[in-house]
Amino acid sequence: MNFSLIFRMVGWVLVALAGLLLLPLICALCYGESVLPYLYTILLSGVLGGLALLFIRPRKKALYAREGYLTVALSWIIVSLIGCLPFLFSGAIPRFADAFFETVSGFTTTGSTILTDIESLPRGILFWRSFTHWIGGMGVIVFIMAILPSAGSGSVHIMKAEVPGTSFGKMAPKLKVTAKWLYYIYIALTLIMVIFLLGGGMSLFDSLVHAFGTAGTGGFSVYNTSIGHYNNLYFEIVITVFMLLFGINFNVFFLLLIRDFKSVLKSDEMWTYLGIVATVSLVIAFNITSLYQNFAEALRYSSFQVASIITTTGYSTADFCNWPVFSQTILVLLTFCGACGGSTGGGIKVTRFLLMAKKLKRDLHQMIHPRSVKAIRLNGKQVEESTISDLTAYLVAYIFIASIGFLLISLDKGDFATSFTAMATCLNNVGPGLGAVGPTGNFSFFADGTKYVLSALMLFGRLEIFPLLLSLSPVLYRGR
Amino acid sequence: MNFSLIFRMVGWVLVALAGLLLLPLICALCYGESVLPYLYTILLSGVLGGLALLFIRPRKKALYAREGYLTVALSWIIVSLIGCLPFLFSGAIPRFADAFFETVSGFTTTGSTILTDIESLPRGILFWRSFTHWIGGMGVIVFIMAILPSAGSGSVHIMKAEVPGTSFGKMAPKLKVTAKWLYYIYIALTLIMVIFLLGGGMSLFDSLVHAFGTAGTGGFSVYNTSIGHYNNLYFEIVITVFMLLFGINFNVFFLLLIRDFKSVLKSDEMWTYLGIVATVSLVIAFNITSLYQNFAEALRYSSFQVASIITTTGYSTADFCNWPVFSQTILVLLTFCGACGGSTGGGIKVTRFLLMAKKLKRDLHQMIHPRSVKAIRLNGKQVEESTISDLTAYLVAYIFIASIGFLLISLDKGDFATSFTAMATCLNNVGPGLGAVGPTGNFSFFADGTKYVLSALMLFGRLEIFPLLLSLSPVLYRGR
Repeated sequence: MNFSLIFRMVGWVLVALAGLLLLPLICALCYGESVLPYLYTILLSGVLGGLALLFIRPRKKALYAREGYLTVALSWIIVSLIGCLPFLFSGAIPRFADAFFETVSGFTTTGSTILTDIESLPRGILFWRSFTHWIGGMGVIVFIMAILPSAGSGSVHIMKAEVPGTSFGKMAPKLKVTAKWLYYIYIALTLIMVIFLLGGGMSLFDSLVHAFGTAGTGGFSVYNTSIGHYNNLYFEIVITVFMLLFGINFNVFFLLLIRDFKSVLKSDEMWTYLGIVATVSLVIAFNITSLYQNFAEALRYSSFQVASIITTTGYSTADFCNWPVFSQTILVLLTFCGACGGSTGGGIKVTRFLLMAKKLKRDLHQMIHPRSVKAIRLNGKQVEESTISDLTAYLVAYIFIASIGFLLISLDKGDFATSFTAMATCLNNVGPGLGAVGPTGNFSFFADGTKYVLSALMLFGRLEIFPLLLSLSPVLYRGR
Repeated sequence: MNFSLIFRMVGWVLVALAGLLLLPLICALCYGESVLPYLYTILLSGVLGGLALLFIRPRKKALYAREGYLTVALSWIIVSLIGCLPFLFSGAIPRFADAFFETVSGFTTTGSTILTDIESLPRGILFWRSFTHWIGGMGVIVFIMAILPSAGSGSVHIMKAEVPGTSFGKMAPKLKVTAKWLYYIYIALTLIMVIFLLGGGMSLFDSLVHAFGTAGTGGFSVYNTSIGHYNNLYFEIVITVFMLLFGINFNVFFLLLIRDFKSVLKSDEMWTYLGIVATVSLVIAFNITSLYQNFAEALRYSSFQVASIITTTGYSTADFCNWPVFSQTILVLLTFCGACGGSTGGGIKVTRFLLMAKKLKRDLHQMIHPRSVKAIRLNGKQVEESTISDLTAYLVAYIFIASIGFLLISLDKGDFATSFTAMATCLNNVGPGLGAVGPTGNFSFFADGTKYVLSALMLFGRLEIFPLLLSLSPVLYRGR
């Protein structure tokens, strides 16, 4: 294991984090709040990172899979540990378990909160809380890749480990260029969304934090009633559209930019994803019509909630715990579904479900025609059998992690629905669940131990299990 | 599609069913109850079956996979349709949806009931209800295979489709001999159990019905409080031991009979299964100690319940809905786990979980050492990659069926926990769930539509999805 290479990479991450923390500091300055919580954190992160870069000089620069996985796992844990310091230093969240949960929930773009009164927090803290979504959405290390002069050979392993989806699309032959493109698209879409929100009369602060929450498909709001606070159709439409956009594979935006419309049209995944959103929004609207004035109003609430849950954002405009159990069940299943691979969304991802459905269809055919050989095609391309094998490994690992998580959470005081959906919403990086962790509830009542379990589930979900699982397994450290 | 061959096979099944119905008729005679409900059913089944055997003479005798799947699916549906007639004719269960649910629950060895007062039913009906467990446990068609003079070539497809597990062990080179051995072991174990129960002072009737329920891992009792009715430690121990025995792969018993102890010791699956039972019983006992007088009493209740749930029998001696959520969660997870392949138990099966765990371990190794090639070994033998691929297809199909089932059930009045566990308990052929369908509840409150959905889930579970799924899919009927 090339530890010096790993520590050097983590050093870069710490320096980048120090730089990113300047934004909430500026925000605090603007609102005349104390800048010390941010300043201390910046100093700590900067000095630690600087020392690592100054004193650790790896002899070998080759990066293998094991170093890639460990770098990603370590970076995310360290970023969460340092990222929670402003909450602690400012006294906004006095307990470590709470601050750590909130920060992991931010970086992993989950959006579950332990806060009972969000609106009482300082502006700088609220800004930092939402900004963690934006940082975590695309990934800290992808950011480093984009700005680092030389990313080193084999850094594809790092990128693979951090970008969600069965396989990340290579937009350019050089990885650094792909990372840059990802960030260009990410920044551009976020800015356009801010402009749309400002245009509707939302304040700059609110526009920024809600754009951060949407772009990262996170879901932290600055109001206790989330987006329901505004009761404004225009904002809801803008946020719905952008939630859906950030749930699409970023490859699609790249293809649009290079005017390869043919490939966009062939994206099975995107069409399935949009098809699910449309169908499910209608079904839920029918199911909840009696609770609202008319079908149109029901559709307004259902489509927002469906977009919010399938993209794993987690904003809410209604308390869906009051909807019929059928609608709640659909939302819970959407939690597992998630958005497209290569987006900022969480969950198992539409691509994986498409692949599963196609494999099942092929296998049913083969059970009847044992001698036939049929390949699986996705997005117009043939899928290799190794991809299916990887998918199985992911599914199996997912089922094991979900079961262990569910079991550990059930040791706490929540009932069956609360425990199950707390597991599902954290592992899939969504935000709200049902019961005590529903849209009007929060995660504060859980014991510290449960909060750490939930934090671990969020990290497992965001990193798609393997980087973290491998870092905890002896296999990573054994052999050359 | 060779329909005449399929109908002829179904004809045999109907004749066999008519024969098996003589037992409840005799029971009704002994208790001086009306024999007409059974007589009418025997006549109908016998005449229909006889006509099929008389007039349908297939020209080709070769049986392919598609005929195998359709034969199994059709047989199980027709057996359930005819099997529910005694309930209807006797007036014990007046509604068709209820009688069908109860019969499917019997044959699939689920043990979920729509009855609110079991004890008020005639003896003959109670006998038939429990006897369906025994018939369904080993499979109607395996029975036919064992007694039919010539099972025809390719009947391996039928056997594969009806016997649970990733692959059924071939005990003898001839299929007919394997089928016979399966039934010899099944009958012998059932008889030994009856003797043990009689020895403890249980009445002959009670001993028979509870042995049927245990052997088929079904779980219908003749008392409203299930096995808790006796409050007798000896009975509980006998039933626990036999539930566990019937959850073991019948191959193991065959190996014991031919004194191949070495192979028995190598059975990873059996040891894992027994290891889970021991560990989980202890964990639950610790969790529920405070509810009982001491740890020993807690262990008495926990071990019975764990054996009952993991073998998917579903008997109960305590209302586990009053246990802590942690224990309930463990039981729900055990529902999915199920017993060993090649046993009469339901669920996903321990073999599949072992295979999944082994595949995951291998794949984690390969992520770090991409060039290494490692085979997966189970029960001392190398597992082929095609077995893993089949497992994936099963898992995917299972997840889809479970999700659709859950969604449809949630349209009814149950809450989240009720809907989810009703799906889980039916698909896994267990019996009780949580909430309104817990050990003290029943399934009567569901709407007729939901009862049909639950019946379908039970059949999907018992036949391990594919025979039924393929019969509903156009693929089976397309092409030569």
